Amino acid sequence: MNSFGNQFRITTFGESHGAAIGVIVDGCPAGLEIDEDFIQLELNRRKPGQSKITTQRKEADQFKILSGTINGKATGTPIAIVIENEDQRSKDYSHIEHVFRPSHADYTYQVKYGLRDHRGGGRSSARETAARVAAGAIAKLLLMQHDITVQAYVSQVGNIVAPDYKRLDLTKTEDNIVRCPDAATAEKMIALIDSIRLQRDTIGGIVTGVITNPVVGLGEPVFDKLHATLGYAMLGINAVKGFEYGSGFSGVTIKGSEHNDAFYADGEKIKTKTNHSGGVQGGISNGEDIYFNVAFKPVATIMQDQETVNDQGEAAIVSGKGRHDPCVVPRAVPIVEAMAALVMADMVLLARTNKI
Amino acid sequence: MNSFGNQFRITTFGESHGAAIGVIVDGCPAGLEIDEDFIQLELNRRKPGQSKITTQRKEADQFKILSGTINGKATGTPIAIVIENEDQRSKDYSHIEHVFRPSHADYTYQVKYGLRDHRGGGRSSARETAARVAAGAIAKLLLMQHDITVQAYVSQVGNIVAPDYKRLDLTKTEDNIVRCPDAATAEKMIALIDSIRLQRDTIGGIVTGVITNPVVGLGEPVFDKLHATLGYAMLGINAVKGFEYGSGFSGVTIKGSEHNDAFYADGEKIKTKTNHSGGVQGGISNGEDIYFNVAFKPVATIMQDQETVNDQGEAAIVSGKGRHDPCVVPRAVPIVEAMAALVMADMVLLARTNKI
Amino acid sequence: MNSFGNQFRITTFGESHGAAIGVIVDGCPAGLEIDEDFIQLELNRRKPGQSKITTQRKEADQFKILSGTINGKATGTPIAIVIENEDQRSKDYSHIEHVFRPSHADYTYQVKYGLRDHRGGGRSSARETAARVAAGAIAKLLLMQHDITVQAYVSQVGNIVAPDYKRLDLTKTEDNIVRCPDAATAEKMIALIDSIRLQRDTIGGIVTGVITNPVVGLGEPVFDKLHATLGYAMLGINAVKGFEYGSGFSGVTIKGSEHNDAFYADGEKIKTKTNHSGGVQGGISNGEDIYFNVAFKPVATIMQDQETVNDQGEAAIVSGKGRHDPCVVPRAVPIVEAMAALVMADMVLLARTNKI
Amino acid sequence: MNSFGNQFRITTFGESHGAAIGVIVDGCPAGLEIDEDFIQLELNRRKPGQSKITTQRKEADQFKILSGTINGKATGTPIAIVIENEDQRSKDYSHIEHVFRPSHADYTYQVKYGLRDHRGGGRSSARETAARVAAGAIAKLLLMQHDITVQAYVSQVGNIVAPDYKRLDLTKTEDNIVRCPDAATAEKMIALIDSIRLQRDTIGGIVTGVITNPVVGLGEPVFDKLHATLGYAMLGINAVKGFEYGSGFSGVTIKGSEHNDAFYADGEKIKTKTNHSGGVQGGISNGEDIYFNVAFKPVATIMQDQETVNDQGEAAIVSGKGRHDPCVVPRAVPIVEAMAALVMADMVLLARTNKI
Repeated sequence: MNSFGNQFRITTFGESHGAAIGVIVDGCPAGLEIDEDFIQLELNRRKPGQSKITTQRKEADQFKILSGTINGKATGTPIAIVIENEDQRSKDYSHIEHVFRPSHADYTYQVKYGLRDHRGGGRSSARETAARVAAGAIAKLLLMQHDITVQAYVSQVGNIVAPDYKRLDLTKTEDNIVRCPDAATAEKMIALIDSIRLQRDTIGGIVTGVITNPVVGLGEPVFDKLHATLGYAMLGINAVKGFEYGSGFSGVTIKGSEHNDAFYADGEKIKTKTNHSGGVQGGISNGEDIYFNVAFKPVATIMQDQETVNDQGEAAIVSGKGRHDPCVVPRAVPIVEAMAALVMADMVLLARTNKI
Repeated sequence: MNSFGNQFRITTFGESHGAAIGVIVDGCPAGLEIDEDFIQLELNRRKPGQSKITTQRKEADQFKILSGTINGKATGTPIAIVIENEDQRSKDYSHIEHVFRPSHADYTYQVKYGLRDHRGGGRSSARETAARVAAGAIAKLLLMQHDITVQAYVSQVGNIVAPDYKRLDLTKTEDNIVRCPDAATAEKMIALIDSIRLQRDTIGGIVTGVITNPVVGLGEPVFDKLHATLGYAMLGINAVKGFEYGSGFSGVTIKGSEHNDAFYADGEKIKTKTNHSGGVQGGISNGEDIYFNVAFKPVATIMQDQETVNDQGEAAIVSGKGRHDPCVVPRAVPIVEAMAALVMADMVLLARTNKI
Repeated sequence: MNSFGNQFRITTFGESHGAAIGVIVDGCPAGLEIDEDFIQLELNRRKPGQSKITTQRKEADQFKILSGTINGKATGTPIAIVIENEDQRSKDYSHIEHVFRPSHADYTYQVKYGLRDHRGGGRSSARETAARVAAGAIAKLLLMQHDITVQAYVSQVGNIVAPDYKRLDLTKTEDNIVRCPDAATAEKMIALIDSIRLQRDTIGGIVTGVITNPVVGLGEPVFDKLHATLGYAMLGINAVKGFEYGSGFSGVTIKGSEHNDAFYADGEKIKTKTNHSGGVQGGISNGEDIYFNVAFKPVATIMQDQETVNDQGEAAIVSGKGRHDPCVVPRAVPIVEAMAALVMADMVLLARTNKI
Repeated sequence: MNSFGNQFRITTFGESHGAAIGVIVDGCPAGLEIDEDFIQLELNRRKPGQSKITTQRKEADQFKILSGTINGKATGTPIAIVIENEDQRSKDYSHIEHVFRPSHADYTYQVKYGLRDHRGGGRSSARETAARVAAGAIAKLLLMQHDITVQAYVSQVGNIVAPDYKRLDLTKTEDNIVRCPDAATAEKMIALIDSIRLQRDTIGGIVTGVITNPVVGLGEPVFDKLHATLGYAMLGINAVKGFEYGSGFSGVTIKGSEHNDAFYADGEKIKTKTNHSGGVQGGISNGEDIYFNVAFKPVATIMQDQETVNDQGEAAIVSGKGRHDPCVVPRAVPIVEAMAALVMADMVLLARTNKI
């Protein structure tokens, strides 16, 4: 099913080269001001053609709200958003109508459904994430009412790693085209992506998300732990291979006596001295920063000949055509933020029913 | 909510020191033979008191099926399983009735719900996972009908790392108490855990899961990608800090030209030469092995004095009492398998509606 | 939430006077031929302005499919359908911006949400049901694959009652504007509605649904009984006040010895001699005709002055403006069919997981 | 699936002659006092053997809470309730192991699942409703916090009809064994049931539900209209054939000018002069009494020989054995209340997310 969330729930639709993509946002509380300029700004951060290190494909990604608002405010009914597909060069894909691109979804879709929309990857195209970004913008507007901030940035490209998030000024994320708030690191990342692009190859990276000022008490204890739902959200983004929060994978080598986060009282507030927990304990937010890493693989489409098979099982050669990203992480930043915002908005609403 | 899954759906209940824990398995197809001996064997693999490197607490973890079977077969109605709590020393927990243990769920539960069951961590206790193991055993029985195998083992404890899964014989996982199929590595792991235990400390580790012979076509394209659902399942296990599948976090440093898995025809079958994809492409199984890593933090309960605050916000000292695991991963192996089996069973059923 | 169904699930959006209404159909099995002409025919049966006894408002109700098909076949991904709003006379509604129409949703929406889209009733308008009819047409296409037929007709208007469905030829339903297959009764119904219309008043009626050739075994035993889900579907249609199936309310006066449906063998098939059960036993279809009645109240908008209050709690007078139906049942027939088809399509898919 | 509700959600399990039946109540807000005496009182109202006009089968229906409470208060975690089966005479059912009882679920279960628990009807037994009554008692406790009252009574048995609910004193419902608050009508109903019982036959009836003092704004606009959810809940009760609310089926013969409920201001409150709407407008509560009728068919088990077939399709004769109700409505009263309370509790929680 193509829905995400419980009380703040989205349902997306659309293929890369169909008439349009879009999303229904259901459960948005009535009275929320729906700032359309803000939604467009968020979409612009994700759209193709932004810079030399992203795909040169052009899509305006202009959205239209079909329902659910009046006088700029949410009415409590479903908010339907449509983004028309524009710069389609479906012919760029005729060569893969009967051939399976390596590490793409062509083969698995074909077997699962018995047919597929091969143009631009159809539903498996990252284009679908524009719908999530639009919905995520509305989630962010709701979170702003609760003073919760969701931010993300590029923390790694290939082997180039940015400093820890606490040493960064996240307001600088948009200052460069790779979306790494550390200027020196950003420069190296851009150079790497550019050189990879010239090699007609691709490279992966890591996006780090940071949620500040969360209410204490968000998240459900067992299956819908806050971090489990965040992880589920992130792993549902195209090309993601891993998720960790707080100390993450590096936490396995630390002893409990060092890993535990000691509580202390800061006036009325209870805080922790360290934050290996990543702001989540027992699956529930404890008020500290929630931070997490999302690993993206190198983009599968490369401008090189690759061995594969066609839908008759015969050996074939395929090479990338069209216009593709050499590295997905700069454009993935707003997607990570959107999915995190959707999780948090849902958890904020769910938490209203915790107590009598 | 305390449910997991769509068509094969479980709902768990129970606290560490209440009358019982248990699970309802809903959607189990009628006619499946419910092998009770097998369920008990799975529970035995998780239960406390198995060896010197696990908690010495004793629980028989004997289960009782209350409904949903006749003559040993599933009837298609809910299968309710109850496991009574036995070896409860609730007094071991009176010292934390008003004190928040560091990196536990005490504080967050208290704020979220306004009250909490402090005995043994209540609902946040890993005891709840016994219910999942029982349900997971039924999922495994269903998967056996489809010749799908779900296995897990300990691949890392602290800094001690086992060889890659392809070089291991997973039938040997149960040959030692740490559940690492490589005997030499297992020995080192056991020694490390034992020394950590003597330091009254704890250590983390990694459990690797491997699913062999999956049907092609399992998983839903967008949010419920097969790996996203697996990740969600794993991150919902107590103490888990990260999840990666296939090339995972290490995949970010590999170029696309190396990372892509070339297709080839093996008779009737289409296979891939490498498997960086971890058996999942576009969120859907491609028939190759599905493999993934699950990172567990060090257990939060340590037998040392730690600084904290009480529920009045006053500084306090707390030290672990009772009987706890110095390292959670050996007992986590069957839990990882259970959660993976639940995901796969659900996906197998969901896939029945893909096509007309 | 604005979704309906489990495996065959729709989500509708849209207000009467917004940009558009529409629906996402999720879970439609891949490979189904999506006959767009058929969808339009179904929409035409519901659209306003069909005859003298329906509203004179004109809406072409032309739909557009935005996603989910290729070469006329479902791909297994969400099918998004949009119907633009056209003949909007929002000014017809300015008189009710601050006044609550009796027996409409104005007051309850205002209190629930704190604001409302007053134009044409906003989300509460029956216009939303066009989206359901479009989705229901796809459900019907799926049911045709299983030789299941869903039909409805007008069986009562005011006190004028048609003969029992078994004595009717349901292929004649579309032969007259009131959609009653019995010509003599239809004539009386039309005369009644016309006279009511001239009185500037409205009248209610009953739509009877008949599902023939259902597979045995559809429906879930406890909460999602087949008839409970049908009833839930019907009661979710605007203006519906009651639902009964099989013997229904009249069954309460019959003794068990007369009410029970005796089984007999008809060759390989097991049938029942009578069908007070309405084709459903224990919540599950038994293969006999499923038949049910849906009661619709008189339309709330009447062309007469009525006492009410405004949003300041002051006494006010309101009278219907715009173009409204004097009786809703003729246009409700395709809506009843659509909702029944959606239920049956979902149950057909769910039943694929009953057994191993 | 065997779950009901969204935020206040129950999952029931259990067969008539298995080890136990029970329910998990998930989403109960923390801090609610769980009055166990009240739960038992509610169960006692439903249990068999209460009087001469109900089955003589004896079940103590004593429940046990396994989880989810501490010091008598809900902790916000799942409340599991188990009721053991006691007075089982499974041999009473050996004669139907291979024979399908007319108008029972035997045949449909057999086809749907390929096997069935024939003892006492297995899952299709009304015994399952005890679990709902226990859960409904908790829902009632939550509703009491909001001063919402849910009541039901027997308004019709066969052709004997009680006066309208507004002319009745519902505090007298428990004064007689048939649960009709009008003493004179009750006497006639009891006499009728007794005579039917002596004829070894059964008879149906109607239970009327009345919800007083509902908050304005409960219910979701489209599919989950308050009355649609109530109808779905009622139609999910065994033996129910119909549901109507407000004017119901009789509303179809009334003109709009008479049927509409005029608003007026009563001090600060907005009320309606009449209540044909049954307290629900546009699917949302308007603060007036919510009232509805639930039609129950005659019990299918009669103490007479009936024609049927066996599981080989051969003609057979079957007669009721065991101890059964000649009329189900007296014991259905607490079940109707329980299901209505579950709906209302869920809607109360859902309404917390309507607005920012």
